[in-house]
Amino acid sequence: MDQTQTAKVVFMPSGRRGNFPLGTPVLRAAQQLGVDIDSICGGRGICGRCQVIQAEGSFPKLGIESLPAHLSACTETERRYEKRKAPMANGRRLGCQALIQGDMVVDVPPDSQVHKQIVRKAADLRAITLDTAVQLYYVEVEEADMHRPKGDYQRLTEALEREWQLSDLHCGLALLNTLQATLRTGQWQVTVAVYAGREIIALWPGLREAVYGLAVDVGSTTIAAHLCHLGTGTVVHSGSMMNPQIRFGEDLMSRVSYIMMHPEGAQAMTTAVREGLRGLAGEIATEAGIGTDDILELTLVGNPVMHHILLGINPVELGGAPFALATDEALNIPASALELGLHPGAMAYVLPCIAGHVGADAAAVVLSEEPFLQDEVTLLVDVGTNAEIVLGNRERLLACSSPTGPAFEGAQISAGQRAAPGAIERVRIDPVSKEPRFRVIGSELWSDEPDFAASIDRIGVSGICGSGIIEVVAEMYLAGIISSDGVIDGALAGQTPRVVADGRTWSYVLHDGGDAGQVIAVTQNDVRQIQLAKAALYAGVKLLMDHMGVPAVARIRLAGAFGSHIDVRHAMVLGLIPDCPLDKVASAGNAAGTGARIALLNQGARRTIETVVHQIEKIETAVEPRFQEYFVDAMAFPNRTDDFPHLFSVVSRPPEKAPAAGGERRRRRGRS
Amino acid sequence: MDQTQTAKVVFMPSGRRGNFPLGTPVLRAAQQLGVDIDSICGGRGICGRCQVIQAEGSFPKLGIESLPAHLSACTETERRYEKRKAPMANGRRLGCQALIQGDMVVDVPPDSQVHKQIVRKAADLRAITLDTAVQLYYVEVEEADMHRPKGDYQRLTEALEREWQLSDLHCGLALLNTLQATLRTGQWQVTVAVYAGREIIALWPGLREAVYGLAVDVGSTTIAAHLCHLGTGTVVHSGSMMNPQIRFGEDLMSRVSYIMMHPEGAQAMTTAVREGLRGLAGEIATEAGIGTDDILELTLVGNPVMHHILLGINPVELGGAPFALATDEALNIPASALELGLHPGAMAYVLPCIAGHVGADAAAVVLSEEPFLQDEVTLLVDVGTNAEIVLGNRERLLACSSPTGPAFEGAQISAGQRAAPGAIERVRIDPVSKEPRFRVIGSELWSDEPDFAASIDRIGVSGICGSGIIEVVAEMYLAGIISSDGVIDGALAGQTPRVVADGRTWSYVLHDGGDAGQVIAVTQNDVRQIQLAKAALYAGVKLLMDHMGVPAVARIRLAGAFGSHIDVRHAMVLGLIPDCPLDKVASAGNAAGTGARIALLNQGARRTIETVVHQIEKIETAVEPRFQEYFVDAMAFPNRTDDFPHLFSVVSRPPEKAPAAGGERRRRRGRS
Repeated sequence: MDQTQTAKVVFMPSGRRGNFPLGTPVLRAAQQLGVDIDSICGGRGICGRCQVIQAEGSFPKLGIESLPAHLSACTETERRYEKRKAPMANGRRLGCQALIQGDMVVDVPPDSQVHKQIVRKAADLRAITLDTAVQLYYVEVEEADMHRPKGDYQRLTEALEREWQLSDLHCGLALLNTLQATLRTGQWQVTVAVYAGREIIALWPGLREAVYGLAVDVGSTTIAAHLCHLGTGTVVHSGSMMNPQIRFGEDLMSRVSYIMMHPEGAQAMTTAVREGLRGLAGEIATEAGIGTDDILELTLVGNPVMHHILLGINPVELGGAPFALATDEALNIPASALELGLHPGAMAYVLPCIAGHVGADAAAVVLSEEPFLQDEVTLLVDVGTNAEIVLGNRERLLACSSPTGPAFEGAQISAGQRAAPGAIERVRIDPVSKEPRFRVIGSELWSDEPDFAASIDRIGVSGICGSGIIEVVAEMYLAGIISSDGVIDGALAGQTPRVVADGRTWSYVLHDGGDAGQVIAVTQNDVRQIQLAKAALYAGVKLLMDHMGVPAVARIRLAGAFGSHIDVRHAMVLGLIPDCPLDKVASAGNAAGTGARIALLNQGARRTIETVVHQIEKIETAVEPRFQEYFVDAMAFPNRTDDFPHLFSVVSRPPEKAPAAGGERRRRRGRS
Repeated sequence: MDQTQTAKVVFMPSGRRGNFPLGTPVLRAAQQLGVDIDSICGGRGICGRCQVIQAEGSFPKLGIESLPAHLSACTETERRYEKRKAPMANGRRLGCQALIQGDMVVDVPPDSQVHKQIVRKAADLRAITLDTAVQLYYVEVEEADMHRPKGDYQRLTEALEREWQLSDLHCGLALLNTLQATLRTGQWQVTVAVYAGREIIALWPGLREAVYGLAVDVGSTTIAAHLCHLGTGTVVHSGSMMNPQIRFGEDLMSRVSYIMMHPEGAQAMTTAVREGLRGLAGEIATEAGIGTDDILELTLVGNPVMHHILLGINPVELGGAPFALATDEALNIPASALELGLHPGAMAYVLPCIAGHVGADAAAVVLSEEPFLQDEVTLLVDVGTNAEIVLGNRERLLACSSPTGPAFEGAQISAGQRAAPGAIERVRIDPVSKEPRFRVIGSELWSDEPDFAASIDRIGVSGICGSGIIEVVAEMYLAGIISSDGVIDGALAGQTPRVVADGRTWSYVLHDGGDAGQVIAVTQNDVRQIQLAKAALYAGVKLLMDHMGVPAVARIRLAGAFGSHIDVRHAMVLGLIPDCPLDKVASAGNAAGTGARIALLNQGARRTIETVVHQIEKIETAVEPRFQEYFVDAMAFPNRTDDFPHLFSVVSRPPEKAPAAGGERRRRRGRS
C-alpha cells in the first residue's frame, strides 16, 4: 500500500476531519483527531468497544464522493472477535482493525462513544453525559526479567504510560497485595481500573469489560440504590429497603435524641445503616447477576443526620443550635472505610451537605433539577421532618430548612398512618352536602363506587396517609367546613352528621367503619398540626423569596415521595407552596436518587455541585426574626398575606366567612 | 511608644537582620526574616517554644553598641507561662511576648529552632537536621454560629489558613469522626497535627506539645524500634524483640519455602510480625510513659521479604528467579493499614527496596552512610542469609546481593550457634604450638586466664557464634593449620593433639569440655561452609568493583550485628572483603536503624533516598557469568587473584604451602 497517499476522513457525529495515510487504522485516526471513541484493549481487537460504520452515499459538501467501501477487508482478528463474543451488527467493523483505504465518512455509533448520552428517565428530555471517574485500561505488561530488575508495580505503570499516556499514578496497599499474583494469572495481560486519572484501584487478569457503580440515597425511612454499568451508564438494577435505624426512632430528631441519651447509640446506628446498605448492595448485585466486588464506586446522598451517621460522625451537633455540620465539603473516601463489602479498592463520593438542615440529598436534588442553569426562578421543596427548600436561578441560589415536623408524613395526626394499604390517600368533599368520597391505597375505586366495599374487603380502611391528610384538609376548606383560620365550623353540626362535637371543638368524620371498623375523623387538632406544618414550610419559602427579592416563583419542583403523591392543587389550596401557574408545578420524582446517579456517571457534575453548593446562600430560619412573623401569617388557608391568582383561576374559592374568634393562633418557637 | 522609630535587630546564629518598628514582638520580627524559630501556639505565650536571649556586649561590626537591655519588661503572660510550666533559663524570654525597644542582637538557642541539628550518636560527627513530616499547630477556631453557617471542618481549615498560612489541607474520615467533640472539649482551641503540609492527621483539645515517631527495622531475626520525640528529635526509648516469624523458619528462605508449601502461611506471617510490632510499640510507649496514640508516624525498613510480609504482600516471587519485587518505590500509607494500634491518623513511611534481594534496610544503610555524598569509593556490606552489597560514590552507586547462606550466622557449622551466652566469639591460635585461646559470650576473660573456668561456671562453652567461626578459621589459616585452599593439614596430627582425624578429613579441636562438656571442633566441612559463604560475598563485591571499573575500594563499612562483632583483620584474612587500609574499615553499627531514624526526622532525607535508590544500578549476580568465575576464585584464603598489601602490612603472612590436591573446589549454582 502506498503510505505516501492520504485519504480524507470525516467522523460523525462530531464532524471532526483530517487526512491520513492510506492504511491507517480508523481507531488511530479517530484518536488523533480527539474523536470520542471508546477502547479498553488499546487496539488489540479484543474488547469490541471501537465499532464503527462507514456511512453510505456521497457527501458532496464534505468533498467526499460516493465510492465503494473504503475500508480494508474484514480481518482474522475481527472474525475471532465475532466468534468469541457476538457477531457485529450489519456493516460494523472494529475501528482498530479496519484500515483507511480512501476518502470516507465514518459513523461512531453512540455505544462506541466514551462520553455517551444517558437518558435520565423515559419522560425526561435531559440526558447525562457519561464521564465516569473509573476507567478501564487493558495493558500488556513487560514480564519480570532479572536482566532489568525493577518492581512489578513499576512495570505496570510503565505499560500504562506507554500504552495509555497515563502518568503520576498511585495505588494503595490493597492493590499491591494482589498485584503480583494477578499479573502472573493474566500472563502479564491485565485490565486496570484507574480512578479519576490518578489512582489504580483494581486489577484483573486478562480483559475486563464491565464494572459497576452504586448511586445511593440514604433516607431516614428508606435507603434506595441504583446499580449502574459504568461503561454504558445504564441502570442495571434498583432496590430499596427500610432504613434499619428506624428501630432507634421513626424520625430524625427522635434518633438524635436517642443518641443524646445513649452515647453508644451513634455507633450502633452507624453499624445499622452500614450493615443495611451492605445487605442491599449484596441483594442488588445478586439480582443483577454480578458480585459485590464488581462494584468499584458509589455515590452517597442523604440528609445531614443520615450523612453524618453513615460516615460515623456523631450527629448530636445537628440536634441543637447552632446546628453545626462536621463538614460541608464533598468527600472522596475509600469505600472500605464504610465497610460495605464492595471491591477492596472501591471509592465513595459523598455529595456535600448544604447546611445544618439542608443535606447532601438537597444538593443532589439541585444537581438533578439544575436551577443554577435556568433563568426562571425555581423553587425546590423536599419535605420530610424538616423541609429542605432551595430557591433561585442561574444568578443566585438560596437554601434553608424549615421545621415542618412529621405531620405531612401522617404522624401527629389522630388517624394518621404511613402510606400503606388501607390508608386514605385521595379525598373529595361535596361543597353542598359536605359528604366525602375517598380512595384508599390498595384499591382503584372511589368510596362511592358500587364495588368499593368489596375491593377493600381484605385491607379495610385503617387511617389517613400524608397525601390524604393534605387533601382532606384542603377539601374541608374548599367545602367551607373549616374557615380560613382553620376552625371547624360547629354550626354545621345541625346540617350534616359528618361534623360532630369533640370536647370543646368539632371533628369531621371521613369514614365510619360501623361496628366492625373504626371511625376515621379529622379533629380540630389535626387541622392545627397541618396548619403548623404548612406554615413552617411556607414561612421558609417566603423568607427565601424575601432574601431573593422576588414576589413570585416561576417554577416549583416537589422532590421525594411526598412530592410524587401530593396533589398540587390541594397543596396550593392549603398554602404549602406559593401561588404559581399550576402547569409549572411538578413532582421532581426521586430527584435525590437521580442526582446521586448523575454524580456517579459524570465526574464533572461533582465539580459542578461542589461549586454550586459553595455558592448557595445559606439562610438559617432560627435566627431570622421575620421567620416567626411569616410563620404566624401563614397559619391561615391559603395564607393571610398572599394572593393566589393562578390557583383560584382553576379552583373555586370557598364561601367567605368572618374569621373565627381569636386565641387559636399559636406561636411555635425554634425546633421541637 | 513611637511606632515610627525602628531598631536594628540581628538574629544569631543565622545572622539574618532587619529594621523593625519599636514594639514589634521578637517572634514576629524573626518570622518576617525567615529565621528558623519554633512556635506551636502561634505567639500566644503558651507553648514556650520561641524562647530567645538578648546577646550581651556591643557589636561594633554589626553597628550595635553596648546598651542596656533592649527588650520590653517581662510580661504577665511570661510569668504565667513560668508558673504553669517551668522557669525559663537565665535571661531567656518568650519571643512572642518580648517587644523590640532598641538595636540588639538576639540569640535563638538550638532548642528554639525548628530545624535543630540532632546528634546521631555520641561518636558520630554527622548530625540529622530536624524537619519532620508531622508538624503541630495550635489554633483558635471561630465558634460555630448560626449567623455564619458552615462546617466545623471549614472553620478549622480557615483558622489554619489565617494563623499559619496553611492551605489546601485534607483530612480523612477518622479525623472527621472526632472533630466536633474535640473542638468543643477544647473550647474551640485545638492543636492540629499536619502531615507533609497537606493532611490533618490528628487533633487535640487545647495545646499539645509532644508527639512521637517510631523508626523500625524489621529484621529476619530481630525487630528493633526507636521512639523519637518529633519536636526535639531525641530518641526517648529504644527496644527490640525476636521476630515472631521465627517459628515459621529461622532464615528468610525457609520462611518463603514455608509459604510455598502452606499458602495461608503468608497471612499468618503478616499477622505475626504486625502483632509483634504492635506489642513492641506498646512496650516502648509504656517504658517512655506515653500512649501508643501519641505515636503519629513510623518509618519502616527491612529486607525485601520482611518488607513484603509486613505489608501483606506474599513474598513468594522473591523466593525464585526473577526475584521480582512487588514495588521498588517508597510507600506512604496510613499506619492503620498495618494494624499497629498507633494513633488512628498515624502515617507510615516505608523506605524503598533497591532490588529483589537488596532491601529497604540496605536503602537505610545507604541513607545513613551517605556514600552518594562522598568522593571516595565506599563499600557497604550487610551480611545476612544474603549479603547486601553497595559500592560507589557521588558519581555512581551499584548494588547487588550475594547468596552467602547462613554460615556467617553460625548455621550449617557443626558447632555453630546463635550469639548467646556460652558461644565462642573470639579466638587466637599460637602459630607455633597451634594451641588456641578463646573468649565466650558472658565472660570477660580469655580461656587461658586463671579464673576463666570459674567465670563460665554457669554458662559453659556451648558452641561457636558467627564472629567466632570467622576468627577461628582465619586464625587456623594464619597458624598454618589450613592451607590457602582451605584444607586442614593432617600432617599436623602428629605434632598437636588439636588436629584429629574425622573420617577421611581432619578437624581442629578448639575446646574439649571433658567428661561433663562437649568437644567443640572445626571440621573440614565447617571450613568449606565458610569458604562458600565468603566466596559468595567476595564475588559479589568483585562484580560491583568490575562494573564500577575500580581496582580497589577506599572505605568499607560493615553494617548490622555481623559488622559490629566481626574483627576486621580476620574478615580480611579470610577474604570476606577486599584489601583496604585497615583504618578505613569500620562497623556502621545499626546503620539500618539509623537510616530509619533519619527518614523519620527529616522529610528531605526521604526524597534523597528515593532519588538515590532510583539511580542505583542494580546488578543481578544470577545472570552475570563472571559471578561464578569470581566465586570459584574467591574460595582460597584470602583470595586466589587478589593481593592484600594493606592487610599484610599489619598481619603476618602464614607459612606458604603447596595447594592441596584438587577436588575440594565446589561450584554452587544459584541460590539454595
